[in-house]
Amino acid sequence: MFERLDATLLTRLDAITAVTHLPPGHLLCRQGEQAAHLHILLDGQVALSGIAPDGAETVLEVAQPVSHFVLAAVLTDMPYLMSARTVTRSRVLMLPAPGLRALTRTEPALALALLGAMARDYRAMVRQVRDLRLRTAAQRLGCYLLALVAEAPGNTARLRLPFDKALLASRLGCRQDSLSRAFATLREYGVETHGAAVALHNIAALQAFALPDELADLPTDPG
Amino acid sequence: MFERLDATLLTRLDAITAVTHLPPGHLLCRQGEQAAHLHILLDGQVALSGIAPDGAETVLEVAQPVSHFVLAAVLTDMPYLMSARTVTRSRVLMLPAPGLRALTRTEPALALALLGAMARDYRAMVRQVRDLRLRTAAQRLGCYLLALVAEAPGNTARLRLPFDKALLASRLGCRQDSLSRAFATLREYGVETHGAAVALHNIAALQAFALPDELADLPTDPG
Repeated sequence: MFERLDATLLTRLDAITAVTHLPPGHLLCRQGEQAAHLHILLDGQVALSGIAPDGAETVLEVAQPVSHFVLAAVLTDMPYLMSARTVTRSRVLMLPAPGLRALTRTEPALALALLGAMARDYRAMVRQVRDLRLRTAAQRLGCYLLALVAEAPGNTARLRLPFDKALLASRLGCRQDSLSRAFATLREYGVETHGAAVALHNIAALQAFALPDELADLPTDPG
Repeated sequence: MFERLDATLLTRLDAITAVTHLPPGHLLCRQGEQAAHLHILLDGQVALSGIAPDGAETVLEVAQPVSHFVLAAVLTDMPYLMSARTVTRSRVLMLPAPGLRALTRTEPALALALLGAMARDYRAMVRQVRDLRLRTAAQRLGCYLLALVAEAPGNTARLRLPFDKALLASRLGCRQDSLSRAFATLREYGVETHGAAVALHNIAALQAFALPDELADLPTDPG
């Protein structure tokens, strides 16, 4: 996100940034509280969850390095819409919200960098809404697996699921029994699983079933 | 969105802006095409749809005056993620994407205004993802009705649905038969309908069932 900023501005950002090392299960921010920090994940995994008034919880995203989270809450000075909790040991940059907003007002290059990041975040959420409305759980799982091997040449690939199946089910917006049925459905399309190890034996057939988007944006840029 | 900009900048925006009057059913932009214009709806209604590779379509949002759409695509110079089609006669401001991006790079006040708008758009999409995952269709319908009467004092209210039930079903992410069942479910909570006319006889009961968010942002600001 900050890669195109000049050295002076990076130094000013660096001056307000703290690095924290966190154990698994650490709550970084809580839905409903006023935004205090922009977080940038350098190592580890962080689950971003939405919580309904009745306490039901769903994982909206699992942040992977390097990516930011709760940017919109920080920029609008509004309460967090998500809770963030580390899944694994993690290393996180934290930028205080008031300092970041002040720099954004005086540094046009920073405002433009954040505007690009915000637009990409928005497009990722639009895709999720579209997927939840137009794809079955099995298709969403298929798209997810295909995204993990996006670079694979040929028609087969092997991969490891990056987190456990409870978290994966929540991330895909389904219950664990639906996830098991989705994996069973995908066996017809050449998807074989042994624990976290997954083999795709027929990528073309999986694509024809899961119908991944052709409009994938560039990945969120580093930092 | 532009209300806090100074007169000079507004004049420069005005110089690249065209106003169009459009009939119902007019396609303003098509998913997958490179972003050409930022649209600002002044009068009328515009349905924003996502389309799956198999042609299935869902209405992600129905824009009401005054609001903008396809801002993220314009800012990132990427293809539209949605198609936009007028529902009723509409009046729309159109700002060419290259001109708007050029002004954004040279005018920090404009970049900041767009950054705020983009952050609010993102938060609206996060809410939709949370609703699709954590609320039933009947609860989503209840929240939608409650939002239409957000200002009502007391425990009862009357309102008119702003568009037909086919569009409402699609907007809520359900089929028309599910919408009919959702209205039937809500009768228990004092919701009575006659065509587009809706009476809420027990707002407290409807709130207790539908569990609307307490974290509603300020509405998208004008323009």
